[in-house]
Amino acid sequence: MTESTATRRSRITPEREAELYEAVLDLLREVGYDALTMDAVAARTRSSKATLYRQWGGKPELVAKAVRHSKPGRTGDLDTGSLRGDFHALVAREDDCAMEQNSALMRGLFMAVHHNPDLLQAFKELLIEPEMAEFQRVLRRAVERGEVRADNPALEYVVHMLIGAFATRALIDDQPPTQAFLASYIDAVVLPALGVPAR
Amino acid sequence: MTESTATRRSRITPEREAELYEAVLDLLREVGYDALTMDAVAARTRSSKATLYRQWGGKPELVAKAVRHSKPGRTGDLDTGSLRGDFHALVAREDDCAMEQNSALMRGLFMAVHHNPDLLQAFKELLIEPEMAEFQRVLRRAVERGEVRADNPALEYVVHMLIGAFATRALIDDQPPTQAFLASYIDAVVLPALGVPAR
Repeated sequence: MTESTATRRSRITPEREAELYEAVLDLLREVGYDALTMDAVAARTRSSKATLYRQWGGKPELVAKAVRHSKPGRTGDLDTGSLRGDFHALVAREDDCAMEQNSALMRGLFMAVHHNPDLLQAFKELLIEPEMAEFQRVLRRAVERGEVRADNPALEYVVHMLIGAFATRALIDDQPPTQAFLASYIDAVVLPALGVPAR
Repeated sequence: MTESTATRRSRITPEREAELYEAVLDLLREVGYDALTMDAVAARTRSSKATLYRQWGGKPELVAKAVRHSKPGRTGDLDTGSLRGDFHALVAREDDCAMEQNSALMRGLFMAVHHNPDLLQAFKELLIEPEMAEFQRVLRRAVERGEVRADNPALEYVVHMLIGAFATRALIDDQPPTQAFLASYIDAVVLPALGVPAR
């Protein structure tokens, strides 16, 4: 029994999982969230719908995991020794082309979230909360090093500042955020709000 | 000739204009931008479609003007003598109930903008650019008073910071922005980034 469960689980290798997530992102870019079906994912990836449901639970979870997978490494891995270093390393991980692609994809998904509470829930659990926890680790280290005062009220608004930069760049400035834009925003806004000298 | 033009223009009084904008906003809340028709606006307001087109040019312009009209007064009217005073006065103008209503409406319209370039254009010309120009006046006065250094790099990101607070509050914190939230964000983020003591 135990062996059969293990065998069943191991049927999906990390390579296969990555391939599957790529196919889901491709389909999302082609048809959008609402028109995406588990049938299409199964056909595109030559897997059975039963496997997809067993492994991911449903479309919202599969989509949230695929988006999570497309993000470069985990923030927690970064430890450059300074908050400015950590933030700039974060920005440098995703190149401008990936950022442009993700920007369009994320805008589409944020719209889908509006009328799909299941997707919002999956996004929160599988994407937003883990990313925020990783941010918290970067910030906690900065507090422990004495770079940021533990009672600095901007600590709880870091995600608001950063998402604002992303969303506004796309909507108002009508261009995807670039590494140069985000690096400049971090130095001009995020670090000064946290009381950390930008240079 | 001149008289007849004047007569035609004066056919729409400010009261009638306000009534018409209210009807447009009601319809937007009921059916959303894509399903809103000029026929429905004409029927609801007992006006002719010809009048609507002559006065506003088209649906995107009518919607942008209606949203602009729903915003409280102009930022340029505010002059409390300090940047913190001006920002807090701005936040205090719109009560939480109006902010909650507008937050849902604006989210819907931001989605419509995504696939309606005409609406994006009208929003930029009639709503975003005038609001940004008014912000620039508030900030210019702060620079002239010596509160903010003219070369402070955060000056060009004030709109990004503020829109980030609005958008993130709705999307991630899952609640409409309130006056208390925005006042706290201004003190914690916007003023420190601009080098102005919050208290």
